[in-house]
Amino acid sequence: MISWAENGNTRFPETLEAIWFQVGRARRMGITGPPGAGKSTLVNELARMIREEESTVGILAVDPSSPLSGGALLGDRIRMEDRTADSGVFIRSMASRGSHGGMARAAVDAMDVMDAFGMHDVLVETVGVGQAEYDVVAAADTVLVVLCPGAGDGVQAMKSGLLELADVIAINKCDLPGADRLTSDMQEAVHLRTAGRDRWASPVVQCSAGKHEGVDDVLAAIKSHREHLSDKLPDHRRKKRIQQVRQVVGEGLDEAIWKTGGYGEQVEAMLGSGITPYAAASRVTQIILKSAQENQSNEFEA
Amino acid sequence: MISWAENGNTRFPETLEAIWFQVGRARRMGITGPPGAGKSTLVNELARMIREEESTVGILAVDPSSPLSGGALLGDRIRMEDRTADSGVFIRSMASRGSHGGMARAAVDAMDVMDAFGMHDVLVETVGVGQAEYDVVAAADTVLVVLCPGAGDGVQAMKSGLLELADVIAINKCDLPGADRLTSDMQEAVHLRTAGRDRWASPVVQCSAGKHEGVDDVLAAIKSHREHLSDKLPDHRRKKRIQQVRQVVGEGLDEAIWKTGGYGEQVEAMLGSGITPYAAASRVTQIILKSAQENQSNEFEA
Repeated sequence: MISWAENGNTRFPETLEAIWFQVGRARRMGITGPPGAGKSTLVNELARMIREEESTVGILAVDPSSPLSGGALLGDRIRMEDRTADSGVFIRSMASRGSHGGMARAAVDAMDVMDAFGMHDVLVETVGVGQAEYDVVAAADTVLVVLCPGAGDGVQAMKSGLLELADVIAINKCDLPGADRLTSDMQEAVHLRTAGRDRWASPVVQCSAGKHEGVDDVLAAIKSHREHLSDKLPDHRRKKRIQQVRQVVGEGLDEAIWKTGGYGEQVEAMLGSGITPYAAASRVTQIILKSAQENQSNEFEA
Repeated sequence: MISWAENGNTRFPETLEAIWFQVGRARRMGITGPPGAGKSTLVNELARMIREEESTVGILAVDPSSPLSGGALLGDRIRMEDRTADSGVFIRSMASRGSHGGMARAAVDAMDVMDAFGMHDVLVETVGVGQAEYDVVAAADTVLVVLCPGAGDGVQAMKSGLLELADVIAINKCDLPGADRLTSDMQEAVHLRTAGRDRWASPVVQCSAGKHEGVDDVLAAIKSHREHLSDKLPDHRRKKRIQQVRQVVGEGLDEAIWKTGGYGEQVEAMLGSGITPYAAASRVTQIILKSAQENQSNEFEA
């Protein structure tokens, strides 16, 4: 089913119908951070601890890859093989192909599948860079941002908006020089963001996943975020589902219009006649919307 | 006009109509690369050299910023003030706000404006991370990727697909240790990608923009890419324009459907009744497309 989701196979939505009643039970965690922060190692350790609590774990690793070739060049999933011998752990990696929307959509689909098939915890890991990666982790209930000392990671994280997404911040490789500074910088940043406001103040937790240290603190922080969320969770998830529908509608319309609708040649002709891209777009949009509004009320009443 | 483009003001497309006949003369260059590679310094040096050739230069600096707050935290444009005293140089920075599509669209609009108002060369600079940033630089005729030695930049560039976008690769800060290794790695990567194929083999050029060294070689490589492109350029640009129309249509439909169309509540009700997001999306898509096809032929004939 995950492969179907990745490939856009129509059997995916059909099959999802059959298992949909089982979706919504898993706890969903998104893990992101800059390259080299030690996300995979930390995910591996978190998965191990969750397994020790008798929960099953699904791990989805979204690899950054070329938007042009569609291929992930490095398969650093190899490092996660510790967990692959355990039948209570399901690991899947996913390349971030072509379209931005496509990858985020397929990642949400994969989380739904792991959820439906009984994983108690679903962890989705991605390198924190672009909008697509945000969309992936933002689909989770709790977002863990992993940083490590060195090379201006803290500043980059602030610049790229990673911190605003973070429900928990892990300072990994905390035995490296600069860890305390990075920790206090991040605490300060969280404080600036939340002071005086009624919102979650993301805990900043030091750990060294490679040395099996502090990962229990990270997990405890994740659990306290879940407790904080508890009664807000249904609303939180409903909003994300509406976004998902919005995205699928956008993709469906785009496909229908440009691949099967034959508008491409008409637009080329319009542009050739010297009108602006906006005028061409406006014309296409109007044609599509013209009667949609009339249909809307009829259809929903039907 | 650039502010209008950024804010989605309807006066932008209207005014573009009036100046559209002047768009298409500028040479467009996209500059990208990882944070800290020295892009701004190199852009500044390139602009200086282009000015010495009596060409006017427009510079668009797209700052990465939070997808949540919409604000660029660091304005490293300050470093470019060398050029601001020159009336033949127009510098504009742009924050990458909210939606992925929005920023890429506004960046293309800004390039069109600079072009229409007589800039001979338009340089757009962005940090090379996500899909949005790709879309920005991919709108240029020639893409310059800037790397510098250290911290696995070469590997990251390959992983993130930066290289596939590169028409010219600059190894900046070439006096740092590892520059020769990075240069030969990149040459090897380019070779692997182009060997035996009839395509442009991106030159890998060392420079040290901060020390004013080798920037002339970078500019020469950019010029030779332009020569290579020459008769392919109209087709190259036409394809990008059709993509632009496609994107504007997608945004227009999304806005019409979700902001004014009232579909959000209907979708919430559908999801509440237990149907999958795909089933809900399919229903919305069908309603919109149902009569669009009938309208299409009538409208285009009208």
